Amino acid sequence: MVSGQSNHNHVHNPPAEVFPTFPPPESQSDDESRVWYQIKAEALRDADSEPALASYLYATVLSHSSLPRSLSFHLANKLGSSTLSSTLLYDLFVSSFTMHPTLRSAVVADLLAVEKRDPACVSILHCLLNYKGFLAIQAYRISHVLWLQNRRPLALALQSCIADVFAVDIHPAARIGKGILLDHATGVVIGETAVIGNRVSILHHVTLGGTGKDEGDRHPKIADGVLIGAGATVLGNIIIGEGAKIGAGSLVLKDVPDRTTAVGNPARLVRRDNEGEPVRNESDVFPGETMDHTSFIEQWSSYVI
Amino acid sequence: MVSGQSNHNHVHNPPAEVFPTFPPPESQSDDESRVWYQIKAEALRDADSEPALASYLYATVLSHSSLPRSLSFHLANKLGSSTLSSTLLYDLFVSSFTMHPTLRSAVVADLLAVEKRDPACVSILHCLLNYKGFLAIQAYRISHVLWLQNRRPLALALQSCIADVFAVDIHPAARIGKGILLDHATGVVIGETAVIGNRVSILHHVTLGGTGKDEGDRHPKIADGVLIGAGATVLGNIIIGEGAKIGAGSLVLKDVPDRTTAVGNPARLVRRDNEGEPVRNESDVFPGETMDHTSFIEQWSSYVI
Amino acid sequence: MVSGQSNHNHVHNPPAEVFPTFPPPESQSDDESRVWYQIKAEALRDADSEPALASYLYATVLSHSSLPRSLSFHLANKLGSSTLSSTLLYDLFVSSFTMHPTLRSAVVADLLAVEKRDPACVSILHCLLNYKGFLAIQAYRISHVLWLQNRRPLALALQSCIADVFAVDIHPAARIGKGILLDHATGVVIGETAVIGNRVSILHHVTLGGTGKDEGDRHPKIADGVLIGAGATVLGNIIIGEGAKIGAGSLVLKDVPDRTTAVGNPARLVRRDNEGEPVRNESDVFPGETMDHTSFIEQWSSYVI
Amino acid sequence: MVSGQSNHNHVHNPPAEVFPTFPPPESQSDDESRVWYQIKAEALRDADSEPALASYLYATVLSHSSLPRSLSFHLANKLGSSTLSSTLLYDLFVSSFTMHPTLRSAVVADLLAVEKRDPACVSILHCLLNYKGFLAIQAYRISHVLWLQNRRPLALALQSCIADVFAVDIHPAARIGKGILLDHATGVVIGETAVIGNRVSILHHVTLGGTGKDEGDRHPKIADGVLIGAGATVLGNIIIGEGAKIGAGSLVLKDVPDRTTAVGNPARLVRRDNEGEPVRNESDVFPGETMDHTSFIEQWSSYVI
Amino acid sequence: MVSGQSNHNHVHNPPAEVFPTFPPPESQSDDESRVWYQIKAEALRDADSEPALASYLYATVLSHSSLPRSLSFHLANKLGSSTLSSTLLYDLFVSSFTMHPTLRSAVVADLLAVEKRDPACVSILHCLLNYKGFLAIQAYRISHVLWLQNRRPLALALQSCIADVFAVDIHPAARIGKGILLDHATGVVIGETAVIGNRVSILHHVTLGGTGKDEGDRHPKIADGVLIGAGATVLGNIIIGEGAKIGAGSLVLKDVPDRTTAVGNPARLVRRDNEGEPVRNESDVFPGETMDHTSFIEQWSSYVI
Amino acid sequence: MVSGQSNHNHVHNPPAEVFPTFPPPESQSDDESRVWYQIKAEALRDADSEPALASYLYATVLSHSSLPRSLSFHLANKLGSSTLSSTLLYDLFVSSFTMHPTLRSAVVADLLAVEKRDPACVSILHCLLNYKGFLAIQAYRISHVLWLQNRRPLALALQSCIADVFAVDIHPAARIGKGILLDHATGVVIGETAVIGNRVSILHHVTLGGTGKDEGDRHPKIADGVLIGAGATVLGNIIIGEGAKIGAGSLVLKDVPDRTTAVGNPARLVRRDNEGEPVRNESDVFPGETMDHTSFIEQWSSYVI
Repeated sequence: MVSGQSNHNHVHNPPAEVFPTFPPPESQSDDESRVWYQIKAEALRDADSEPALASYLYATVLSHSSLPRSLSFHLANKLGSSTLSSTLLYDLFVSSFTMHPTLRSAVVADLLAVEKRDPACVSILHCLLNYKGFLAIQAYRISHVLWLQNRRPLALALQSCIADVFAVDIHPAARIGKGILLDHATGVVIGETAVIGNRVSILHHVTLGGTGKDEGDRHPKIADGVLIGAGATVLGNIIIGEGAKIGAGSLVLKDVPDRTTAVGNPARLVRRDNEGEPVRNESDVFPGETMDHTSFIEQWSSYVI
Repeated sequence: MVSGQSNHNHVHNPPAEVFPTFPPPESQSDDESRVWYQIKAEALRDADSEPALASYLYATVLSHSSLPRSLSFHLANKLGSSTLSSTLLYDLFVSSFTMHPTLRSAVVADLLAVEKRDPACVSILHCLLNYKGFLAIQAYRISHVLWLQNRRPLALALQSCIADVFAVDIHPAARIGKGILLDHATGVVIGETAVIGNRVSILHHVTLGGTGKDEGDRHPKIADGVLIGAGATVLGNIIIGEGAKIGAGSLVLKDVPDRTTAVGNPARLVRRDNEGEPVRNESDVFPGETMDHTSFIEQWSSYVI
Repeated sequence: MVSGQSNHNHVHNPPAEVFPTFPPPESQSDDESRVWYQIKAEALRDADSEPALASYLYATVLSHSSLPRSLSFHLANKLGSSTLSSTLLYDLFVSSFTMHPTLRSAVVADLLAVEKRDPACVSILHCLLNYKGFLAIQAYRISHVLWLQNRRPLALALQSCIADVFAVDIHPAARIGKGILLDHATGVVIGETAVIGNRVSILHHVTLGGTGKDEGDRHPKIADGVLIGAGATVLGNIIIGEGAKIGAGSLVLKDVPDRTTAVGNPARLVRRDNEGEPVRNESDVFPGETMDHTSFIEQWSSYVI
Repeated sequence: MVSGQSNHNHVHNPPAEVFPTFPPPESQSDDESRVWYQIKAEALRDADSEPALASYLYATVLSHSSLPRSLSFHLANKLGSSTLSSTLLYDLFVSSFTMHPTLRSAVVADLLAVEKRDPACVSILHCLLNYKGFLAIQAYRISHVLWLQNRRPLALALQSCIADVFAVDIHPAARIGKGILLDHATGVVIGETAVIGNRVSILHHVTLGGTGKDEGDRHPKIADGVLIGAGATVLGNIIIGEGAKIGAGSLVLKDVPDRTTAVGNPARLVRRDNEGEPVRNESDVFPGETMDHTSFIEQWSSYVI
Repeated sequence: MVSGQSNHNHVHNPPAEVFPTFPPPESQSDDESRVWYQIKAEALRDADSEPALASYLYATVLSHSSLPRSLSFHLANKLGSSTLSSTLLYDLFVSSFTMHPTLRSAVVADLLAVEKRDPACVSILHCLLNYKGFLAIQAYRISHVLWLQNRRPLALALQSCIADVFAVDIHPAARIGKGILLDHATGVVIGETAVIGNRVSILHHVTLGGTGKDEGDRHPKIADGVLIGAGATVLGNIIIGEGAKIGAGSLVLKDVPDRTTAVGNPARLVRRDNEGEPVRNESDVFPGETMDHTSFIEQWSSYVI
Repeated sequence: MVSGQSNHNHVHNPPAEVFPTFPPPESQSDDESRVWYQIKAEALRDADSEPALASYLYATVLSHSSLPRSLSFHLANKLGSSTLSSTLLYDLFVSSFTMHPTLRSAVVADLLAVEKRDPACVSILHCLLNYKGFLAIQAYRISHVLWLQNRRPLALALQSCIADVFAVDIHPAARIGKGILLDHATGVVIGETAVIGNRVSILHHVTLGGTGKDEGDRHPKIADGVLIGAGATVLGNIIIGEGAKIGAGSLVLKDVPDRTTAVGNPARLVRRDNEGEPVRNESDVFPGETMDHTSFIEQWSSYVI
């Protein structure tokens, strides 16, 4: 895990194992089966209760043999255009999911993350079909695989589709872990050398941007379990430490230590969470999972009425 | 009217009459007739002067027998996709307008609000066809009706279309009054339990967000006549009192009293408008209608050059 | 060049020569030829290495006889809809480029600006096809020409298409120079009476907004070489002086002098760049071209860890 | 009923009651209800057994509240184009069915005719969705109603859509009865002053053409119960009498008496069916309903092998 | 003019001047202006009387600056597909009309031919928009120009579009004169080495086919003023002489002399029109223009009733 | 092989081995490889010489990894509609080709048949992309496989798409061999119980129709090597013997013996080809492969001029 206090020269080029953003293939078929079973049950229930939506639900979910095919179809229809056909994208997406099992496990992890963290999420189906943040990040993951295969023009074309359709701009070279929630998502910008760990939640209008000074590693590194509030701007090759929180609307230009909160424009550090306490349960202490947006800054916004 | 100073426990579950976000059906056909007549005259004038636009104007306006049909057609074409057809949406919208007269009166009130408040609005026709904020809010209103009818999957699918096409994300359960201006609109996010009164103006990138802490009532309550500047973030189950102003880019985490201005990140209260004066004319004193974005914060931004 | 310290009454109605936003026609065919030649070479190379993209590259670039035709085709396909056909838009765009050579030279200047300033830009082709900021601004330029020809309904319809598709909202009456980079671009809003000089870089979520108080000249004037960071909000008929920098997330309500930096919400002036030094090379000192986003505010964000 | 032997001068301007091609409105809701119920049951069964088709079946049938709405949706999607939108056609078709109950009863009668006469028809649903002859004739019926309302440009535009999509060219002024089967249908041409009675079956490539000599009444009159074989060409203002048969590939230029068979190019009369026998049961003796294509010409094609 | 009795060896390779199928460019702008003026007047009248069609009429006719542009737009929308875009076809068609004035004069001549000969033609506008035979032949003419320019793959792709959309299959190498009426048109097939003169009328289902025996000149030569009835099949490198008539449903395998009629399967010669009479007025005696389909075969079809 | 003279009772229910219309899977990858290699070479050559077509050629051919994928993509785009998506059809077609190798070998055999028999065929690529008869028959073959799998509603929906788009109506239950040429193809109708052998050529407007009398086996059986001319109508459960020819426009109601020619309406037998001669080379004597359309009927059409 990243230590926010560590030496900059050392940390800014993190060894691969520090941010294992994309784990090696592993058999998660049990989870996927369970999620896919639930999605189909939800789709059947909704198709039954709402005939106006039944055609849509059969086309996007119920006619497909697997979760990756359903998602490929749905994404391809959203991202296709008159010059880059849905059928071509569908083919590309299906073959990407087939060749890269980690893409499949990431889909499942992200779906479960949304279901768990967003009180407005009424079903996994709802997330699969309607959450533009979820859809944007799955399409990004495919662009990332293409980037790594040196199919860069295609990866960049896909990035452009995602940016047009979802207003979410993630460079295909960025590295992003699993269990990610991009809530509302509109306006999120994630730069070329940004790295995001696991179990991170990022609200809309968040920028993980570059400094513009040089061409190398120039974007933020977000450790596991971080929560970044709406409209926050994080710039430069800095580290946001494990379990840290960034307040809505903050401008962050320097490292933020583990389990610490930064708020304001420019950002100040206001609190270290659970200081001195032993960590008992990972998810208990990760704001990226509890989604506690405001309690940590209440004492800070102390105007009198 | 909401009293910003009131007891929280009492206010956070406002009785229906406090935020009469959707008035009972009433016969507003006179207003609608007048507006529709004017729109058609404007469309004829534009079709006449600009042949390249005539086909578009006939398709969207001049071939229709009523304002709700014209709007239904225009919205359905914008929101339709390869899996959720424009024709299905058109049918849904027309029947919603037919069964819910308040949807019709809200269209008229919003059109008049834009025309009155936005100096860049050259005609009601222009607003009807081109204002993504206006269009997003009318589509939201239909999703809200579906939500109240317990047709939730359809309401959420509609929310998703709106978020993709207009980059405006309004939860169908949110309650919003009439005479609303969403100016520019891109990036607006309004959460599930948010409530917005009448004659409110909201600029782009504004978030009325949740706290993430609990699943109940967790979003802001915006009283009548409020003006919220571009990029402001308002979080939590707080009250923004009648006629209050929120400065652009502000982060607001606590109640703002009536006719009071909050600015900054974190927001501070800088002025109570018209303090002590009797209210003579509602629209005179409602910043949501005067759209005075900056005068109230000029003394605050006092850097010397 | 604009002098930030000048008398307001005088400056707020700048004579045309102060902001020569759209230069008279000139023969820049050498530059365009060179750029077009390079784009085609890049497209051929990419089509060769990536069969899945070849059809797209031939449709958008390689089948066209000139850069304006290629761009017209690409834009028309992105902006067209079921009621405003791509073919009509293509026809409109091609004839606009034919009749207005300055539109052509602006395309070239903007392409070169992106290539020079954005480290993530891997080819001019990539910018031409995939940069929504580049595409939005070229479509705006056509809407501006229509506006000046008094074809206002068509100009406004085009603005609406751009706002829907790219989430970039530029009023057709705004005046914008050449060598402009709208990086990432989502959420940019530029008002009716805004003026932007040459060699300016503007990040995403930036607002050049009005004050709402009056209907006349009410939006910012951005001089040459300015850099405006992500999420900055600039409101009112104020001048941002030549070579000034606006920090990310700043709220600017007053003039900013030449070569000066403003940061924060509300913005403060933190530094005058190169104070007292003679200007040797224009581009050396223009932050709009160096894209140095953060160095100038590092000392300002000085929280201790 | 038409008497094929009658005086030409008298017959060529048949009084309306002779060819009651479009009966007055009558309440056939029982039949329609029963057919619609069966169609929905068949669609549910097929959607259940064939997931790949379920979306299509819900979109075209199962999401609709009535047979006319289902058919209007299906036809509008088939006939719509980039310049004449499906939504506009849908609206037109639904309102036509609403205002003209005879259109509804004709749909039911034609569906039952196909089901009864075509051994390849596996379900009423199959006919509703897949029989281009059935679909072409329903769309023609709407064009006929428009023609009678003097909305001729719209009627002719609809004729053109039908001719492009189904390769069936029926002039909107032609008058056609109920219980019609256009089997296979490709290439059928029916001229402006043609009249067709009830319970008629017409195979593909059949022409009911004009003489080209004059502009008045110049096309065939087809009495009740006629069967016209594939590729037959019937030209001029002649009468094909009740229950007559026209052999495949025949060229008919003169009247054909009741219950008589014409075959060959040029056509010869080969047999009078049931001569001298009393008619016991209408459908027993109508070749338009028995679809006996070949028995009547077997003795005629008597080459020896 | 072709002499049907002439020596075959001589005639089967007709010198270019015998069938001047495509005359050299000439200034016919007066005719075109007059026709275009009339079309626009008719479109305005129809748009005025039928709002449901106004958008279509503005898109296809009233927004265009010339007849060739209107036709190019209409054809491109009909023929375009997801892989061969309407915009590309539009561009191709407009540039073809610009570079080949004879294409323009042929459009005018064909429009006037339809208006004059088809009693069902209510306006030139109606023919321009709705006659698939007219549209197919104009698209063929463009494919022919491409063929002559050795752009054969494009010419053949265009042929395929025409065959799919209009069910009219004309090889791009065929040579066809002006003043042509393809009435109803479905199923017309015209082979690679067929030649058609001026003022010819051809009904639907007509085949001008090859013999299949050799690869050289193997299709019919149709002289000026010929009329070919519905469903006629003309096979082999034979000559149909000037002003000849071919009866509906005929099978013609040998030359037909000038002003002679052939009917039946196999065809017999039944009459020489105007034998011995001096020709006074060309159009009086050309069946291709009088469209007298049946009078000439009435005595032949002499069955007794 | 079928013996045309055989006992009817015996022949009308042909044992499967008599008409082995769909051979068992066999490894034909050599032929397919060679054809696919040639198609790609032709596509590259055409894309190079015709930039306007390059995008189309890359989309339909050059971006695909195999002939079945290329054909699946092309067919899916032609047959897809707003309610039955191209992507769904593509998926269906690709999986059909994968599971049924005979579908692949039939594609190759039909391509080679067209190339060999049609003098107008300039390349295999041309046939693959542009021959509606070829495309219709491949789509039919997939519908046939679905029919055999008891997926009848889907098979019938596919038949309907083919009939709309190509005007070719082949019942999915019909059985058709390999090496088939449907030349021009418009208007071809092939009934439910029809059977067609190998190396058969069928021109446009040909009907293999039923008798309408009963519901059982009621359509023609076409043996190997048969040639059926344009517009011929073959009705009833009869046998057209091996190597027989049916003249254009003929009406055939009785068996036609092997190597015999039938012409006329009604058809007469005019010649037995190669009578008494031993068969030396199959393809020499099969009119279905020599495509000799007319020589055999020249002596028959003996009118004097």
